[in-house]
Amino acid sequence: MAKLQQLQNYLQEQNIDAAFVTTPDNVFYFSGFKSNPHERLLGVMVFKEAEPFLICPKMEVPDAISAGWNYEAVGHLDTDNAWEVLSNAIKSRGVHLSSIAIEKSHLTVERLEALQQFYPQANFVRLDHKINDLRVIKDQAELEKMREAARLADFAIEVGCKEITEGKTEMEILTAIENAIRQKGYSMSFETMVLSGPKAASPHGTPGDRKIQKGDFILFDLGVIYEGYCSDITRTVAFGEPTNEQIAIYEAVRNANERAIAAVKPGIRAMDLDKIARDTIADAGYGEYFTHRLGHGLGISVHEFPSVTGTNEMVLSPGMVFTIEPGIYNTEIAGVRIEDDVVVTADGVEVLTKFTKELVIL
Amino acid sequence: MAKLQQLQNYLQEQNIDAAFVTTPDNVFYFSGFKSNPHERLLGVMVFKEAEPFLICPKMEVPDAISAGWNYEAVGHLDTDNAWEVLSNAIKSRGVHLSSIAIEKSHLTVERLEALQQFYPQANFVRLDHKINDLRVIKDQAELEKMREAARLADFAIEVGCKEITEGKTEMEILTAIENAIRQKGYSMSFETMVLSGPKAASPHGTPGDRKIQKGDFILFDLGVIYEGYCSDITRTVAFGEPTNEQIAIYEAVRNANERAIAAVKPGIRAMDLDKIARDTIADAGYGEYFTHRLGHGLGISVHEFPSVTGTNEMVLSPGMVFTIEPGIYNTEIAGVRIEDDVVVTADGVEVLTKFTKELVIL
Repeated sequence: MAKLQQLQNYLQEQNIDAAFVTTPDNVFYFSGFKSNPHERLLGVMVFKEAEPFLICPKMEVPDAISAGWNYEAVGHLDTDNAWEVLSNAIKSRGVHLSSIAIEKSHLTVERLEALQQFYPQANFVRLDHKINDLRVIKDQAELEKMREAARLADFAIEVGCKEITEGKTEMEILTAIENAIRQKGYSMSFETMVLSGPKAASPHGTPGDRKIQKGDFILFDLGVIYEGYCSDITRTVAFGEPTNEQIAIYEAVRNANERAIAAVKPGIRAMDLDKIARDTIADAGYGEYFTHRLGHGLGISVHEFPSVTGTNEMVLSPGMVFTIEPGIYNTEIAGVRIEDDVVVTADGVEVLTKFTKELVIL
Repeated sequence: MAKLQQLQNYLQEQNIDAAFVTTPDNVFYFSGFKSNPHERLLGVMVFKEAEPFLICPKMEVPDAISAGWNYEAVGHLDTDNAWEVLSNAIKSRGVHLSSIAIEKSHLTVERLEALQQFYPQANFVRLDHKINDLRVIKDQAELEKMREAARLADFAIEVGCKEITEGKTEMEILTAIENAIRQKGYSMSFETMVLSGPKAASPHGTPGDRKIQKGDFILFDLGVIYEGYCSDITRTVAFGEPTNEQIAIYEAVRNANERAIAAVKPGIRAMDLDKIARDTIADAGYGEYFTHRLGHGLGISVHEFPSVTGTNEMVLSPGMVFTIEPGIYNTEIAGVRIEDDVVVTADGVEVLTKFTKELVIL
């Protein structure tokens, strides 16, 4: 519960009476309890000067405790007013709340209004940046989980490559990959993408019944969750001999990926990495076909901080983990994306995903 | 786009200048475009007196158009300030916004504050109830999709039952079910549950490596999406001869399910159905083991209105679709839940899920 202590320290430093953490991933970060509450109230309440508690649907209380939560777990029934249950648990601690930190990027207007009914005089301040600051730097235990998640992603790409044969559908290949991961007892961190031929040129396409044919590039984008932490990898492979134009696109993406990765070290800004990759692709003549940011942070969430865009001035520090995933999407020639998960180390970079970036021709 | 017209009519009646729809499921409802924008801005802006537009990540603009959106689709890049893009699109319509309807149960405090920067004088009013009122009554086209989604759910249960053999794990059975659905070209509406023995008594347990053994009750909870609409079914089956106590629990749940369904008709309140099921289970002596609401609305979302709880006074009307899913969870004897999807008709009820509720003994 060291993370909970860091949050309490922050409340003391800033003289904020309480923090109400409601994003499910942040609840997991502070409590060890992973749950999807749907529309029900789930949160961790941390106080400047009292014991924290978790509030969750009553039927999940035993799960929270067996996940390692060792403070009070307050349950609410569907027939309860969950906000009243929350307010009573606060009252029972004898604390007065004149300032409450909330996650403004997650808490809905409706929930803020519900809190305001119980604490009409309270000042609601922004908590998001502090949690982001904590989460963005992974500790050794977290990095160990992410290394394992990345190893599983490498394995999944290997499975995908072995499955490719003429006439097989994207969906059949996808199913084989997901089954292999499930058999190991893990689940995917997002919907697996297997896109072939012109469909690989749609950065958010949907796998379907298209059959693999000679001359296709096949794009895999997938990730695996290991003990609550996500990986996210993309590899694009060729089925049959690629044309020179296809190879040129592949190599431009690979250069962009490798140059950006080579530049990762403490002190560089996220936007600098984006520029290196973008310039590499533009110099190769494909600038207009690279239509998204270079990457995104990775951890408990598959998209978290830092965002690696052309405008993010955030200076990178050791322990940050993010993706580097340049792409070129030209439906006439090829769609290629190559994505790795990287960690900023004390003096450079550690690449978690290790599947080859040589053009694999199957 | 009849649904969009209904929303515009509402703005005219209420004299609200615009409505900003941001819940992805509601964006789909009004635009036909289904997208998961992650943290990026996605929304439909509808005006009292101007043409609507859709705002989405630029790379998704072609997808929105091919999904049938035939007004302006405004794209934003990761490097843009999406709120500025939104404000410019509004400006270009020459409308003045002094009142804006927002989805308070979805829009975050952060996004409201972003909107307030551009419209500091505007009054932000609640839109949620109006969209709920529209969505809660399904039209014939929607019901036809839900019937098909339910047929697919019945089929999935059938597959699950056929897969059960001694020593097979929950995960293996789950995989076979999901593969069968995928092979038909569909996807599940939520994470499939296959829980066996004492695990079936955990209403939110996770399928794993537990091997099926004689004397187990096996609980399937799953759903399939058909053209954007969800089904949600639960069946509990016995592997090997059940004990008398297990049968008693099964029959109590089945009676609760069937009595509640028999009572469904226009004019009855959601809470009345919950009470019928709860009384049936209490009379059988298992009241303390039925720990959740009777059901939830179903449609584009797997949980929507109406909520079927002991306190919801909502009067049911034709076209409403929801689940009826009583359960008894006793880890010493059995965990049983039986869930159907039902529609309120002009004079009673249509049950969409048709898999037998006789106790299946495998």
